[in-house]
Amino acid sequence: MKTLDLEARWQELADVKDALGARYWFPGTSGNLSIKVSDDPLEFLVTASGKDKYQRTDEDFLLVDRNNQPVEQTGLKPSAETLLHQKVYELTDAGCSLHVHTVSNNVISELYAEKGEITFHQQELIKAFNLWEEDAVLRVPIIENPAHIPDLADLLAERIEENVFGVLIRNHGITVWGRNAFEAKKHLEAFEFLFETHLALRLHTQGGR
Amino acid sequence: MKTLDLEARWQELADVKDALGARYWFPGTSGNLSIKVSDDPLEFLVTASGKDKYQRTDEDFLLVDRNNQPVEQTGLKPSAETLLHQKVYELTDAGCSLHVHTVSNNVISELYAEKGEITFHQQELIKAFNLWEEDAVLRVPIIENPAHIPDLADLLAERIEENVFGVLIRNHGITVWGRNAFEAKKHLEAFEFLFETHLALRLHTQGGR
Amino acid sequence: MKTLDLEARWQELADVKDALGARYWFPGTSGNLSIKVSDDPLEFLVTASGKDKYQRTDEDFLLVDRNNQPVEQTGLKPSAETLLHQKVYELTDAGCSLHVHTVSNNVISELYAEKGEITFHQQELIKAFNLWEEDAVLRVPIIENPAHIPDLADLLAERIEENVFGVLIRNHGITVWGRNAFEAKKHLEAFEFLFETHLALRLHTQGGR
Amino acid sequence: MKTLDLEARWQELADVKDALGARYWFPGTSGNLSIKVSDDPLEFLVTASGKDKYQRTDEDFLLVDRNNQPVEQTGLKPSAETLLHQKVYELTDAGCSLHVHTVSNNVISELYAEKGEITFHQQELIKAFNLWEEDAVLRVPIIENPAHIPDLADLLAERIEENVFGVLIRNHGITVWGRNAFEAKKHLEAFEFLFETHLALRLHTQGGR
Repeated sequence: MKTLDLEARWQELADVKDALGARYWFPGTSGNLSIKVSDDPLEFLVTASGKDKYQRTDEDFLLVDRNNQPVEQTGLKPSAETLLHQKVYELTDAGCSLHVHTVSNNVISELYAEKGEITFHQQELIKAFNLWEEDAVLRVPIIENPAHIPDLADLLAERIEENVFGVLIRNHGITVWGRNAFEAKKHLEAFEFLFETHLALRLHTQGGR
Repeated sequence: MKTLDLEARWQELADVKDALGARYWFPGTSGNLSIKVSDDPLEFLVTASGKDKYQRTDEDFLLVDRNNQPVEQTGLKPSAETLLHQKVYELTDAGCSLHVHTVSNNVISELYAEKGEITFHQQELIKAFNLWEEDAVLRVPIIENPAHIPDLADLLAERIEENVFGVLIRNHGITVWGRNAFEAKKHLEAFEFLFETHLALRLHTQGGR
Repeated sequence: MKTLDLEARWQELADVKDALGARYWFPGTSGNLSIKVSDDPLEFLVTASGKDKYQRTDEDFLLVDRNNQPVEQTGLKPSAETLLHQKVYELTDAGCSLHVHTVSNNVISELYAEKGEITFHQQELIKAFNLWEEDAVLRVPIIENPAHIPDLADLLAERIEENVFGVLIRNHGITVWGRNAFEAKKHLEAFEFLFETHLALRLHTQGGR
Repeated sequence: MKTLDLEARWQELADVKDALGARYWFPGTSGNLSIKVSDDPLEFLVTASGKDKYQRTDEDFLLVDRNNQPVEQTGLKPSAETLLHQKVYELTDAGCSLHVHTVSNNVISELYAEKGEITFHQQELIKAFNLWEEDAVLRVPIIENPAHIPDLADLLAERIEENVFGVLIRNHGITVWGRNAFEAKKHLEAFEFLFETHLALRLHTQGGR
């Protein structure tokens, strides 16, 4: 890993953070983001814990290793949910992982928690996930939200499979990934659009039930 | 076609893209825009495929001819839906064509898909379409969304007629046009307002049915 | 009227236009704004017809007299609804008048059209209208929307009375005024908040009826 | 209290005001904000009455003492609700207090007024209030809205207790606090998110009842 790459990845992740922050997707300092810097050994930049993510500063991210430990001495603490990012890098070809709370993703996560998933089909936007067939189905798993992070990470790991690009956590937002920052952001935007549209249509067809 | 005109049209289309992007009307890199540069032979600038349309770059658009082929050698690929723009230019006096996804246009497209259209009357905003009579009706056709783009383009072409300024595609946004970028944007804003208002009122009068 | 005052009023109105434009309250070039420059004889700046009000230019407004005619030779056309502004200046102590379309004001205007008004009480925000008593009531008249502007202006005039600071036009937005640009904007923001809150609460208590 | 501290606190509060203003949380000049500058004697900066809080000026705040009187001679009037801020500083360890109106906080305040409170549990966002147990409950008291401010302040004082970080006032927004500007803003964002999410989910599960 060269310093130049590290700097470039930092900027990419900071730009994504700004773009999502402009939509208020980090309420109450929630959410966490990461970007892979090196594959072998695994190292990634992850958001420092407890910051206001609507600001851009030089201390927004820190580099951690595959054990979620800071690579260099730092006063910063990696996000409490860094383990979820690590699982994503271990189990997929992701280069970037985004965890955010929106009203729509939280409502969907509760409304369909019992079913354990929500699926989308015959929606143009599923093409954002490289699903081009007319009868293609996008599946979004929904997991429970245990307070103990290793338990949560295990639940997440269990539901990662081919053509899964994000997992909803019950009343705890969504974790989304892509091969790079561009694709992760594209996936996140498409999920949010699908969730918002589903909920708006649902009100008109089954509102209050 | 002079270089000067091409530059002016590019700026106009880029400004419209920025304005629509500020409203998040290109979720997951969706949407595509075009502006006519020359009538005979037909040449128009169209968005390059697969870009994040919330950014402004020098590679956002490329010039294509009436066969949807790049006029000059380029590494850029025209939007997969360029054919829809071409149909609009062939069948109307449009100088600009905009295709975007919003929550409201997608909900309307599904809610009224069976009826094949939605109509508006006694709404002040239909004056944006040059409909000034008190009993004037704005008709917005709704078409199905076949995965094969030439089929989709044929469906679109079938529904283009006088006083139609946009066509909804089922769960696939809206295609809107106008004589120039100013008018196309005006039409798009008016459609969106009519759709949002219709849905909000509908919840209060027939919510959940 | 001194040139200096004219310039100051222009800036005030342009600032209000920018602030409302940032909220997308001029869909499809709709809406019109005015500010009084001189009392005797009556002269006011009013938005030129047909502009994109999300842009700020040197041709956004023109000065008109009490007959709604341009004071100086100009290629600009005063808004088609200038007559409504003139009525407001004639019948109230207003120094600024704002007409905008929002989803909420249009939905309210239709939902309560038959009643001819909507009232608000026990809402903190009615203090924005200088109503401080615990049992004070804010009354907002709702009028029909005839296509002939002089008829519309007459309907508006009929409903202007003490403690009325704005009138809803059925499916045609709201006209709001205040003694100056600051107060007109304050009133408009308060109306919008009251409308949005009323509709959101109504969905929870009588949704779909 | 040193001049330097005063300046730093002013900037912090002005930044929070800008951030909340960008979300339109001060409709119709409503809302008021304060930040503690000195503990003994109690002195705090509070918003001047009647300003457009979407603007940033040198006259946005003034310093008041424990009797809510200006510390220095000034033409500015402290917010009419300064007494509520003083109560918060007296009864908690708060260093910053924020009072804003949003559609969601007003709807919640009315919908649950009879119950006198709303509670949240099994929502990830309650961690923003330092509640980490899986069965933790966030309690938000709701009080009536008497027009006489000292009565309102008494109602507020009665409901302040441990693990209460904000109080809803019926149809009169929310008052939120934290040990400093950062924490107060974090709490406010988390409340708003919880309210919005609760209302959106409620429409789908009990809409119209």
